[in-house]
Amino acid sequence: MPAPDLAVSQWFNTARHLDLAALRGRVVFIHTFQLLCPGCVLRGIPQAQRIERVFARTDLQVIGLHTVFEHHAAMTPVTLKAFIHEYNLTAPIGVDQPGDDGPVPVTMGRYGLQGTPSSVLIGRDGDILHRAFGVEDDILVGARIAQALAAPVARIGTAPAPPGDCAGGVCALPG
Amino acid sequence: MPAPDLAVSQWFNTARHLDLAALRGRVVFIHTFQLLCPGCVLRGIPQAQRIERVFARTDLQVIGLHTVFEHHAAMTPVTLKAFIHEYNLTAPIGVDQPGDDGPVPVTMGRYGLQGTPSSVLIGRDGDILHRAFGVEDDILVGARIAQALAAPVARIGTAPAPPGDCAGGVCALPG
Amino acid sequence: MPAPDLAVSQWFNTARHLDLAALRGRVVFIHTFQLLCPGCVLRGIPQAQRIERVFARTDLQVIGLHTVFEHHAAMTPVTLKAFIHEYNLTAPIGVDQPGDDGPVPVTMGRYGLQGTPSSVLIGRDGDILHRAFGVEDDILVGARIAQALAAPVARIGTAPAPPGDCAGGVCALPG
Amino acid sequence: MPAPDLAVSQWFNTARHLDLAALRGRVVFIHTFQLLCPGCVLRGIPQAQRIERVFARTDLQVIGLHTVFEHHAAMTPVTLKAFIHEYNLTAPIGVDQPGDDGPVPVTMGRYGLQGTPSSVLIGRDGDILHRAFGVEDDILVGARIAQALAAPVARIGTAPAPPGDCAGGVCALPG
Repeated sequence: MPAPDLAVSQWFNTARHLDLAALRGRVVFIHTFQLLCPGCVLRGIPQAQRIERVFARTDLQVIGLHTVFEHHAAMTPVTLKAFIHEYNLTAPIGVDQPGDDGPVPVTMGRYGLQGTPSSVLIGRDGDILHRAFGVEDDILVGARIAQALAAPVARIGTAPAPPGDCAGGVCALPG
Repeated sequence: MPAPDLAVSQWFNTARHLDLAALRGRVVFIHTFQLLCPGCVLRGIPQAQRIERVFARTDLQVIGLHTVFEHHAAMTPVTLKAFIHEYNLTAPIGVDQPGDDGPVPVTMGRYGLQGTPSSVLIGRDGDILHRAFGVEDDILVGARIAQALAAPVARIGTAPAPPGDCAGGVCALPG
Repeated sequence: MPAPDLAVSQWFNTARHLDLAALRGRVVFIHTFQLLCPGCVLRGIPQAQRIERVFARTDLQVIGLHTVFEHHAAMTPVTLKAFIHEYNLTAPIGVDQPGDDGPVPVTMGRYGLQGTPSSVLIGRDGDILHRAFGVEDDILVGARIAQALAAPVARIGTAPAPPGDCAGGVCALPG
Repeated sequence: MPAPDLAVSQWFNTARHLDLAALRGRVVFIHTFQLLCPGCVLRGIPQAQRIERVFARTDLQVIGLHTVFEHHAAMTPVTLKAFIHEYNLTAPIGVDQPGDDGPVPVTMGRYGLQGTPSSVLIGRDGDILHRAFGVEDDILVGARIAQALAAPVARIGTAPAPPGDCAGGVCALPG
């Protein structure tokens, strides 16, 4: 299943917006959190930081996503900014765009995540390889990411024309 | 050294304001924190919760104090309220009153605390028995509190008349 | 209940045999273990070492007791000696005397201990204050030891003559 | 560098001797320990057990190796057998063969290991992929094993005749 686009209202720790389409060809590890979620603070975020360190020399992209689905007034971007500073988080972190109806933000809804902390592993081809609610064993997570990094993007033949783009002399309509 | 009064602008988890004078005769353990302080969340607050459990049947009073001295806009009472809910904190927690000049709140200044997490142990006679910056060893903390609880309030002689009260045939004006 | 005597076949980390009668007036913390018991190695012994550190300036006496009740051929004094060296144990450790009948050693039987790790806290008057099977919370253990240390040995009146000793002009026969 | 043969005097948890030559084509994770080594008991062995669980459905072979290089009289096979029972170790464990001269056992010497705990990762082609003294980060270890598992044994062409075996009409003398 292709990973849906991220809907992010504000980014921290990055000068430009991150876009999964632009990351195609790389493995992406997204960890979602809320700054007042104990399991995120005690386990999820520290694990994401260990992942960053271990895979620092690979082309893995780690992204944090602040998916606030409760206590919205308590977890504003102002508080998130101070949280990022105090916990010394350096990877790109996006604020999941508030939902139009209901408390669940847009990206969290698109990915069907059950709560926080959650994680999503996206392969080089842009497909979702794994989704997890809660924090999994470090060895397992390390193995799964390494496996995704080891998988070649083996596309022999012509790539499909992206929607709205022209290739091979013909132009496809936008999807 | 007598423990200075607490200057608290708002209380959580208690119907009425706590007053050290009214707690005279009991041992009081105050732990100070900021909700975005990693050492508080990971170590200080969990220790305070263990203290509550171990001494639940004694007359020890545990008090949390939210001493915000940085990122004030990020750690408002609205965020603190959600934090208390998410971390399932049940002991009384006071918001240290913002300082008149400078970022350090009033009670934190009165006690000369260096940062968060800190703790203050007050004896039955209202004196400060111990102050610590950082989280100390559990065995040591348990021992120190037990020692304070074991100390009798040995006051032989007439107690001073409380302000506004009558004793010995005379009535004192309220202080 | 008065703490029964220790039956120890060999001591480590002490030049002379320890005798509870000679320790009367002091608080004694005994932790029992088997060198191949995971709960002892991972939790019981480290806690005993923390206790030693915290109460180093008090008159608490910490004693380790190797109460082997299974795999006797695997946990000989030769192996215990190397274990003590490798784990850097410095408090006195006694080898509980093998039982005459059955696998349970003598002291372990006298104290009615259920397994390892266990602990026994003995008060200044020589009575057992607390027995525990398993490792208890550090704060609780610290508090209980401090409470025992704080208790005075308040004996107003004549001490009973020890057995076989002469006091007050008369000599008692050994009990 | 091809992994040297294991020199094992006794195996536990396996009916037959394990032989690296026979494991060619599989990834092998060897963790070495001494039963009285604190770092092994507290960190190395638990990590090996996590590795077994995470990779249970792969063809990874985990092997424990008891490389006693000190306190030989204290860590005999009798004690090791009870240790394996008490710590509930289920993977194959070999006793490294005592050295002819000096305290270092044979396999430990062949692999040039510096102490315990150590680990060796062997690839599908029988080469040593990684050696470590001490316990490394779980994520890193999980990633490295997964990478080794993902590597194909890509041998295009004729395999070399094993020593003493006949292939292609000729028979080679045993090496």
